[in-house]
Order: sequence, then structure tokens, then C-alpha cells
Amino acid sequence: MDEKGTLPDSASGVCAVTLSYNGSPFAGFARQKGNLLTVQGELEHALQLLFRREVPTVCAGRTDAGVHARAQVVSFELSAEEIEQRPLPVLARSLQALTHDAIVIRDVERAPSGFSARFSAKAREYRYLIACDTSLPLLLRDFSWWRSDFAALDIGAMNEAAKPLLGEHDFVSYCKAASAEGKPTCRNLIELSFSKERYFEEPVVVAKVKASSFLHSMVRTLIGTFVEVGLGHRAIGWPYEALSARDRRAAGQTAPAQGLVLWRVIY
Amino acid sequence: MDEKGTLPDSASGVCAVTLSYNGSPFAGFARQKGNLLTVQGELEHALQLLFRREVPTVCAGRTDAGVHARAQVVSFELSAEEIEQRPLPVLARSLQALTHDAIVIRDVERAPSGFSARFSAKAREYRYLIACDTSLPLLLRDFSWWRSDFAALDIGAMNEAAKPLLGEHDFVSYCKAASAEGKPTCRNLIELSFSKERYFEEPVVVAKVKASSFLHSMVRTLIGTFVEVGLGHRAIGWPYEALSARDRRAAGQTAPAQGLVLWRVIY
Repeated sequence: MDEKGTLPDSASGVCAVTLSYNGSPFAGFARQKGNLLTVQGELEHALQLLFRREVPTVCAGRTDAGVHARAQVVSFELSAEEIEQRPLPVLARSLQALTHDAIVIRDVERAPSGFSARFSAKAREYRYLIACDTSLPLLLRDFSWWRSDFAALDIGAMNEAAKPLLGEHDFVSYCKAASAEGKPTCRNLIELSFSKERYFEEPVVVAKVKASSFLHSMVRTLIGTFVEVGLGHRAIGWPYEALSARDRRAAGQTAPAQGLVLWRVIY
Repeated sequence: MDEKGTLPDSASGVCAVTLSYNGSPFAGFARQKGNLLTVQGELEHALQLLFRREVPTVCAGRTDAGVHARAQVVSFELSAEEIEQRPLPVLARSLQALTHDAIVIRDVERAPSGFSARFSAKAREYRYLIACDTSLPLLLRDFSWWRSDFAALDIGAMNEAAKPLLGEHDFVSYCKAASAEGKPTCRNLIELSFSKERYFEEPVVVAKVKASSFLHSMVRTLIGTFVEVGLGHRAIGWPYEALSARDRRAAGQTAPAQGLVLWRVIY
């Protein structure tokens, strides 16, 4: 429980589920109308089967269609009787059994009274993986943006360009245009760094992006913009200029969903 | 070409393709009768479309259904006219375009006259990945054997047990029984080692298994046997006793296909 706050109030029925998923088959995390497969839909359907009532859930990060999660957190409230009826390890196994194969239930814990996976979160960390299309890491195939110009990426330039974006700024230029209207678009960017790593002996560029919270498509727009700098198509100062323009059209393209992973949530 | 022998004879039309694949959708590498999806079937179908004739192919390691490859090698022979008609980079792109999504064409090279992906290979290296089912590495989900008793694996014991199996032995105890009849079953085991590594911050046990060549299901039977030692269910001397028994029933279970990857072929 240490990551999710103080010791749980034993009278609280708030539960926190930590789960991984491969985002490929899902139309995103958030439940949608119609028969679309969503992570929240799978979880709430399973909870309804188990408790014979609607159990509303809240998540730390509403991932878009095709975006993956390594450690998403979802909270919901159960009654004392419901918890007695299905102790947490049993609940974890039941949720695993009743949800789509691409979801892995990693943990179910009691949370302190008033805990919300969304509102109690202090920060979210995402990672974005970029790989080379020809020496493609087999195991990353579904989890990376493959590029034929991968070898040309200058991560020194990308890291240099990231510095002025750290801290609190209006990130409206990095937000999906339709989602920004009439909403606060200031965010505190805590980390934006790029490193060349090897996974399974294959080179991969890993972007670590951490913020208090994110705007819609913010990580993917940052990545799409910084790749242009890494390739030398744009100057190191461009991402900050785009930020200052407060206009989505000033920034680069939105990188594909498949490279993005909600890595962890900090409480 | 350095890995595949001397400089190519320019009169030779032998080509060597290096490819990766996710084995999940395939009924193995080898072409089969009927409409079964196979890696060889995909390659030969593509070659037939390109050259309007049957182009027989040979591979370095005939992986079973569900087994993956990081760098499988496949060879075939083209005429001088065919090579002129489709230079190698064009051929690589065409093969990529005409084969199943789970296949990645990494390279197409000219090989020396007489080169065979199968018979010219000096050794094959496989890796087998074992992960923990609850802290499951998201990106390894389709490429590992998940076990709830993962944390208990004692790789020191497994490495100790591996020593007497190195070198030339009759591995019939580690061969799928039906495949061993009437065939030579001596093999030279060059490496069998286990290490605990972290991929994407998650613990994983990686087995490296290298031999001149392998018997049918040999790697998976070794893994199934050594996991019993790692868990303390069997003594360190057991895998060698099973070897000496020259009886498939003396060894452990066959580990699942999804954890196995043909890692590289040495020429």
C-alpha cells in the first residue's frame, strides 16, 4: 500500500487494481457506447457478474485506442459484505478469469478511504518506444513505432530540446485540438528524456515522459515533434517555439498509439 | 556476408534471407498440406508470385507451431536473370509486402555458391524466456512461459545441473519420442545457461541454449526438465540421469512453445 498513501481504513471498501494490458485489441480504456471492446468495459462487466450490480470504476490514465499499460491503476468501491464475500486474492483471480486475454490483473489492494485512482494520483509516467524497422526487435513489434530512419535519431539533440519544456507551461500546442476547448491546458512536465537502450540485443529509443497529468494526445504529440528534431529536420529550439505559439498546428505530428505505454502511476 | 562464409560467388544465385517472426499465428515454419498458415508457405507463396515458378526454400531451424524466431535464415536459389530483375533490396521489400504481418524480413543477401541455410550452419542458438505470471512483463506476454512459482527458480542449481550435459551426448531422452526412431540422436550441446535478467524492469529468466543442431522439441524438453530442478522438485543430478537413461520418459515435461525463440544461426 505504500505507493497508494497511508494505511487503509479498514472500514473503507475502496479497492485499487493494478493491471497491464496490450492496447492493440481495445478501443481505448474508457467504456464506450455500443459493442466496442474497452478495458473499462471488460472490468465493469466482470465486476457486474461478480457482484450483481453496477460497480463504477475510475482509472489513473484514460489511455487511447491502441495505447498499452504496464501498470494502470483502477479504483472502485465495494461494501464490507462484498469484500467479505470475495477476499482480494479471490477477486484478483476472478477478474483475471472474466476479462479479455490482453489484460493481466497484477494486484488488487484495499485503499484508504477517499482514495481515487484518478484524483489521488500525484503523477503519471509514460514511456514511448521507437525501434528500427529492419532490425526490428521481434518482441517489441506491437509496442513500438518502427522507423526506417531510426539510426539517424540524435537523442542528444532531443534531450537538449526537451529542457525548456520542463516545468509548468500551457501545453495547448501539444493537445489534440478538439479536446482543448474551454479546458485548462497548463500542465507540469516533470521529465522528458530520451535514451538509446538495448532490449533483446536490439537498439531502441526509449522516451520517458512524466507529468502531474497529461492532456489528450500530449505524449504522442511531444514524441512526433521531438522525432523531427532528432532527425535534424527541425532546430533544437523548435519544440519550445511550438509550445510558445499555443497553437496545435505549430507542433509536429501525433506519433502512433502502438509505441505508447502507461508505465506507472505515482501516488 | 561475414557470418555466412566467404565472399559470394557472383555467378551464384543463392540468396539468404534473415527474418524474424512471431510464431503465434503459424502452424510452425515448415510448409504443410492443406491451408495451414506456415512461415515457409508464406515465403514460398511470395516467391512464386514474384518469379512465376516454384522456388524451394531451406531453413536453418524448423521451428514448431508457436515458436518464434529473432533471426531465422532461409536460403533459395535464383537465376542470374531473376536477380537482375529484382535486386536484393527490392526483393526484401517485396517479400515483406507479400508475407504475413507477423513476419519481418530483416535482410536479403547473396550467399556463396553451395550455401545452404540448413547444411552450412555450424550452430544454432535458442533462447527460452520464463516470466512471473503476476508481475508479468507486458511486452513479454506472448513470448514467455508464465509461472506463478517463478520467484522460487534457483538458477544456480539449474546452471550446476547443466554442466554434465555440455558436449557430445545421445540426447534421445530430450527428443520427442516419435521423432527419434531410426535417426541419429547424438548432438553437441555447446551452451546451456540460465540467467535472471530484467526486461522493462520486470524479472525474467533467460535460458541460452546453443548446439550444432537440435533434436525435435529438444530445447523445450531441456527447459521443462531444468525448471523441475530450479524449483527443487528434483535433484541437481536428475537431468544427467535422464540423459543417461536414453528414454524420453526419464526427462521432464515439454515446456510450452510460446517461450522459445530461435535467436541466431552461426555460419
